[in-house]
Amino acid sequence: MNKISLDEKFSLFSERWRPKVIAALNGQEVKIIKVQGEFPWHHHDNEDEFLLVWKGKFRVEFRDRVVKLEPGECVVVPRGTEHRTSADEEAHILCFEPAATVNTGNIREATYTAPGGVVI
Amino acid sequence: MNKISLDEKFSLFSERWRPKVIAALNGQEVKIIKVQGEFPWHHHDNEDEFLLVWKGKFRVEFRDRVVKLEPGECVVVPRGTEHRTSADEEAHILCFEPAATVNTGNIREATYTAPGGVVI
Repeated sequence: MNKISLDEKFSLFSERWRPKVIAALNGQEVKIIKVQGEFPWHHHDNEDEFLLVWKGKFRVEFRDRVVKLEPGECVVVPRGTEHRTSADEEAHILCFEPAATVNTGNIREATYTAPGGVVI
Repeated sequence: MNKISLDEKFSLFSERWRPKVIAALNGQEVKIIKVQGEFPWHHHDNEDEFLLVWKGKFRVEFRDRVVKLEPGECVVVPRGTEHRTSADEEAHILCFEPAATVNTGNIREATYTAPGGVVI
């Protein structure tokens, strides 16, 4: 029941591709992520993901198309759908998905797979 | 898997306090709401709500405090917690909550209780 400031929360970390939980509710989590570069192809077996760009430019690539997003634009990645995200320059992303969703979904990758439930 | 623009979605309606669904996932909905004035006191028995201000200034009042929010600021209203929202001038709000959450929670009010599941 306290105010949460997105800009303040984003200012607290610099690492990329490692989601930070800013709120938990109804078995879901609201996470923020700094991204730059290209994330591995993956899918989530049982989780849909809502991604909203807060700052910067962000691409969500599916096997048949690329969705290019700017601030205030969002997309839903349905469960089971292969996707890969990328950004040429750092972008700030808000994500709404079930708690304990693994960021790399069905794959484990030394650089990109991040611990879940990291609250900031 | 199509791009959703918040500003475009907000431009499609003018009525206030009547949530519009812009995405559904994991049994939850992402809704947008235009607000101005003061909403009735209520609570949600079984649903937590995440509220993010996209434009304008917005207040979320609890029985023991008022949380004042500006763009990029958010708050979680836990289930069972009485609250009342208000805005002096029109504000644009993003809401994450379970599908079929009734906007007025435990009360029914002729002016404010809105139909659920209205997709825009």
